Amino acid sequence: MEQDQQFFHAHHSPMGALASFTVGELGAHGGMGLELGAPYAGNVFVGYQDGEGVVNAFPFYKGAKDQSERYVQKDDTSSLKEHIFEDLNRDYRWASDNFIAPGISFKILSPFFDIPDPKLGQQQKLKQACCPAVYLELTFDNTSEQDWTGFFALQGDELRWNKLIDGDESGLVGVSCREQIGIASQHPNARAFSHFSVQSALSQMGNNDCFMLGPTAGLMIDVKAGEKVSVPVVLGFYLAGNVTYNRAMQYYYTQHFTDLQQVLAYALEHFDNYAAIAEQNDQELVASKLNPHQQFLLAHATRSYYGSTQWLYDGTQSIWVVNEGEYLMMNTLDLTVDMLFFELQRNPWTVKNTLEQFVHHYSFYDQIFDPSEPEKNYRGGVSFTHDMGVANNWSPKGKSSYEVAGLDRVCFSHMTYEQLTNWVLCCGVYISKTEDHAFATEQRGLLIDCLQSLLNRDHPDAEQRDGIMGFESARTEQGGEITTYDSLDHSLGQARGNIYLAGKSWAAYLAIAKVMQDLGEEQQAELALAAAKRCADKLANSLDPELGYIPAVLDGHSSSAIIPAIEALVYPYEMGLFDAVSEQGPYASYISVLKAHFSYILNENYCLYADGAWKLSSTADNSWVSKIYLNQYVARKILNLDIADNVASDAAHQRWQTIGASQHACCDQFSSGKPIGSLYYPRCVTNILWLQE
Amino acid sequence: MEQDQQFFHAHHSPMGALASFTVGELGAHGGMGLELGAPYAGNVFVGYQDGEGVVNAFPFYKGAKDQSERYVQKDDTSSLKEHIFEDLNRDYRWASDNFIAPGISFKILSPFFDIPDPKLGQQQKLKQACCPAVYLELTFDNTSEQDWTGFFALQGDELRWNKLIDGDESGLVGVSCREQIGIASQHPNARAFSHFSVQSALSQMGNNDCFMLGPTAGLMIDVKAGEKVSVPVVLGFYLAGNVTYNRAMQYYYTQHFTDLQQVLAYALEHFDNYAAIAEQNDQELVASKLNPHQQFLLAHATRSYYGSTQWLYDGTQSIWVVNEGEYLMMNTLDLTVDMLFFELQRNPWTVKNTLEQFVHHYSFYDQIFDPSEPEKNYRGGVSFTHDMGVANNWSPKGKSSYEVAGLDRVCFSHMTYEQLTNWVLCCGVYISKTEDHAFATEQRGLLIDCLQSLLNRDHPDAEQRDGIMGFESARTEQGGEITTYDSLDHSLGQARGNIYLAGKSWAAYLAIAKVMQDLGEEQQAELALAAAKRCADKLANSLDPELGYIPAVLDGHSSSAIIPAIEALVYPYEMGLFDAVSEQGPYASYISVLKAHFSYILNENYCLYADGAWKLSSTADNSWVSKIYLNQYVARKILNLDIADNVASDAAHQRWQTIGASQHACCDQFSSGKPIGSLYYPRCVTNILWLQE
Repeated sequence: MEQDQQFFHAHHSPMGALASFTVGELGAHGGMGLELGAPYAGNVFVGYQDGEGVVNAFPFYKGAKDQSERYVQKDDTSSLKEHIFEDLNRDYRWASDNFIAPGISFKILSPFFDIPDPKLGQQQKLKQACCPAVYLELTFDNTSEQDWTGFFALQGDELRWNKLIDGDESGLVGVSCREQIGIASQHPNARAFSHFSVQSALSQMGNNDCFMLGPTAGLMIDVKAGEKVSVPVVLGFYLAGNVTYNRAMQYYYTQHFTDLQQVLAYALEHFDNYAAIAEQNDQELVASKLNPHQQFLLAHATRSYYGSTQWLYDGTQSIWVVNEGEYLMMNTLDLTVDMLFFELQRNPWTVKNTLEQFVHHYSFYDQIFDPSEPEKNYRGGVSFTHDMGVANNWSPKGKSSYEVAGLDRVCFSHMTYEQLTNWVLCCGVYISKTEDHAFATEQRGLLIDCLQSLLNRDHPDAEQRDGIMGFESARTEQGGEITTYDSLDHSLGQARGNIYLAGKSWAAYLAIAKVMQDLGEEQQAELALAAAKRCADKLANSLDPELGYIPAVLDGHSSSAIIPAIEALVYPYEMGLFDAVSEQGPYASYISVLKAHFSYILNENYCLYADGAWKLSSTADNSWVSKIYLNQYVARKILNLDIADNVASDAAHQRWQTIGASQHACCDQFSSGKPIGSLYYPRCVTNILWLQE
Repeated sequence: MEQDQQFFHAHHSPMGALASFTVGELGAHGGMGLELGAPYAGNVFVGYQDGEGVVNAFPFYKGAKDQSERYVQKDDTSSLKEHIFEDLNRDYRWASDNFIAPGISFKILSPFFDIPDPKLGQQQKLKQACCPAVYLELTFDNTSEQDWTGFFALQGDELRWNKLIDGDESGLVGVSCREQIGIASQHPNARAFSHFSVQSALSQMGNNDCFMLGPTAGLMIDVKAGEKVSVPVVLGFYLAGNVTYNRAMQYYYTQHFTDLQQVLAYALEHFDNYAAIAEQNDQELVASKLNPHQQFLLAHATRSYYGSTQWLYDGTQSIWVVNEGEYLMMNTLDLTVDMLFFELQRNPWTVKNTLEQFVHHYSFYDQIFDPSEPEKNYRGGVSFTHDMGVANNWSPKGKSSYEVAGLDRVCFSHMTYEQLTNWVLCCGVYISKTEDHAFATEQRGLLIDCLQSLLNRDHPDAEQRDGIMGFESARTEQGGEITTYDSLDHSLGQARGNIYLAGKSWAAYLAIAKVMQDLGEEQQAELALAAAKRCADKLANSLDPELGYIPAVLDGHSSSAIIPAIEALVYPYEMGLFDAVSEQGPYASYISVLKAHFSYILNENYCLYADGAWKLSSTADNSWVSKIYLNQYVARKILNLDIADNVASDAAHQRWQTIGASQHACCDQFSSGKPIGSLYYPRCVTNILWLQE
């Protein structure tokens, strides 16, 4: 990678363990984190002491930026000379992250693969999929004439370590902390140690290889003069017992592994297999048509997605949760709908699982009101909450952790209308992609309720409907709903009259119509199609000839130009409804208008930064890259627009991550390339769609 | 208390839960901490919003020192005016800590009482003793003509809260976090809340009383105009399941309470009873002859002791652990011997329990060597490790977490000789105080081994013994042993030839002799008494007439003067061996010499600071207050020395805590009144002995 872009944090995570070995940023905190929305606030020490006694290390610890700062611990009286690798290369692929410096390479593998449906899968495959470990290949190439001592160690102020007991004489060596995190190897040259610091351990303050008072521990590796040694190391995570509150659940991996030691032993035993999978992941991305920037962006997004995943077990069945990055909200529905494409490629059962959780615990029927007459309530209909809780705390039935009543179109208000479209869209795309007819049949009644709920929120009086949202949920207590773009201005933040959200409702009507047709419910299908038409016509007729585009909010006041006007085309397209998104189909004029709209605004006057990065709204310096990726796909693949400077845009978006958000992998929300929220976010995997271009 | 001394942190802890509600320092972090050697890094908000909308609060949160800094949270757009109480009084008693400001008092109760022997005690009494809770009395006196809203809340960046479910309709309201900490009340005026901050909750950002994304939670209390409201609140702690590693154990309280909610309900139900006990504790101290400084020092020490205690259950029996303050080492034996007097007054079973743990897991037989010929090993004998592990990690059998081989008389070396005397002294004083003959009989063989081990460490050849330690444990690998004064210079830090430690060996010989006499083992008793005589004679003959005192180390080089030369007199005295410490007894010349020694050095030339504070060694600016308290008792009560300026000394030692260590309650180790280690330390309860003066 380019020298100025090679230091950035990345999640290196197992699948479904809500765990991450975070490392890569220069002179920053990192390490093995459990259930965090951030890097663990420790330090990572990787390197070797050479024959001159100098300690050569990668700069993955706080203070490594400044050569005058040293990781001197209290009681560490050693004064070994220290050298930070300056000439290093980073090779960042889909499932491997390799740091190469003179005499050493430090490769981190985070293989990913299809997780079988737990209700159907073989136990062996499920065990393989849930193993909560990350894999390291440490290679030392000692061409000198003196012996070296290599090291890999983690440090954290509150960490105290125990030496692993090699119960079955498999040669396993390593350390663990609170039986929650562990480092292990079976290589004959590796020795476990713990001490105040790597320096104090190397200077052999006393003769104790596992000094229990030290916050630093790991492996020392003997590398003789002239020897090349490659050492497989595994990092294991384990949280036993109930980990969630209000509804108690355990990690699914506890069904296959009784403790950390089992995880470490299994991961070492199957190291080569996991390494081969990582290699396949890498090859698949390299073989794709994506340019190097896109490859980076997909690899980065994938890591952050898995780092946020939490595969639980409620005593009866698996429960899939994706945490909302730094915020740790659980199964945020407006993220689910964006991660849908990734999940349907990898693990469709997780989509169904999440949809069912919403049905059983986080759906509700509300009342609605006309904002011009807020005291009067009408029958609304079914919808779904924004999320299911936060930081392992399930929210009460029918409530999210996020939504607060009494707010008018500002952050933390309700997202009732958008979540209704989101659930319907996930359901529709899931059924189309999987052909899960049983699920379609099960959801028949609910989908009909969803249709009625959508219609009512346009207007309870059928005669007065114009195709888009006009009523607010009474859950706002006379406030106003927002969209997933919650911290943006009204151009994307307000729900009512919003053309982004109107597009989603059009797509939701189409999704319902499709399922209803397949179920033989012709009357419902027609109702839905009529609504889709009404919506598309409303939008098609709203292009303002003076502005040159459709204003973001159809309230007569807005003049913002927004890219996500086109976003919702992805759903019918992914459902195979190619006619619906065609300029020759039933919504031809809507599609033509969207093309005109988009072509008019994708420039520096409206929705482009000077460097080619995309800007979702002309009136706000606040963009979510997950949405940019999604809209790029829609523009290029579905609308067949020929967009100049794609590579420049991709390069700019890469710099947002590697320079702007280098401490916050992978960040979703930026202001002129500076991260302003949604750090360590799972949603950016919308770019999986690029592989279909 | 004096205005400049009233802001300092104090542990407010249940007994045996290794938990603390830490609060009291100005503008500093605090809160409910579990298994910490420090305050929880959160904030405590206590106060009320008055009728003008102003938020009046105690300054118990970070930033409260500086009026321009405000506890503004991200997403907290409120701008309520804030006022920190300036005129406040603190009333700090043995089991209550009361902060009084205009219109409010905030009283924290940490009652303590005898814990029954778990093998013998009634279940009800044991449940009462182990209940992991702290008790608050919040009183609001609203003499204004407008309503107030009182609040008590805790905040921590990573805390997310749930509202308590009032399962049995007892009127319980409150919040909990991860089912580990909780705040509860049954007062009708109290309401649970969680939000970004107290400010955002009071300004009612939206209409949600328990907003799950907020890191701040607690109780709001309605106080009508003209009303005086007193609200009992309990703070509960709970850690379920195994909490220790290498040998798995649970908290003892899990045997009586299945979860946090039970703790909170029980604590509220028995609130008045616990409050009455706290009142008794307070009265007992007030009624004592101690001056106000001494009363403060004992109250402060008591809190820090209980905050470090950990009452565990191994599946069969109770296991008592005292953690070593900030270091969290478990049952450090050189602390046990000092806390002995407190524990024997309160819970003698814990002393026996600890001694037995040392016998079964942390005793060993070693070899020894003459430092002038370090390659040659001799038979040593039995001794005990420094500690049993660290931070819930039991160390391997026969090993401590602290001791490292290969070190010569520096920190982290072995303390084999001192721990041998410590175990013997604990054993001897325990048997004397409790008359536990069964235990004496059980330990008969081990005590004989201890005697032989002590003798061997003087010299393996009986002919060459001079009464004091001359050989080092081979565990040091040709290094040298240290004493509990590990970070002091050789005047107190070196074990061999040290007169502090020699005094302890004299006392250990006497302890063994006493037990042997009682068991009818006349021969062993005589052997021990002969050794005691040899030791006392050696010390008595070592007063250097030119120096005017006994030099700290009898190696011909030392000229340090040390107070703890007299320390060991406490053991025979507490065993009732009054003859042994008498100038008319068998060790008359030793006692006379100690009197002369001490009288010569307790002045500013040697062992006093200018303000009257004591300095343990004339050559080191490094004093442990627990040891000062102990030596004060020995000098005044046992040697009957008339010491001028006692009150000035006590006042100085109080300032060390309230000004020097105001963030580190209760600190043991000081350099000229500045804390330099041993923070949040349990050992300072040596001052319980003052009550016997």
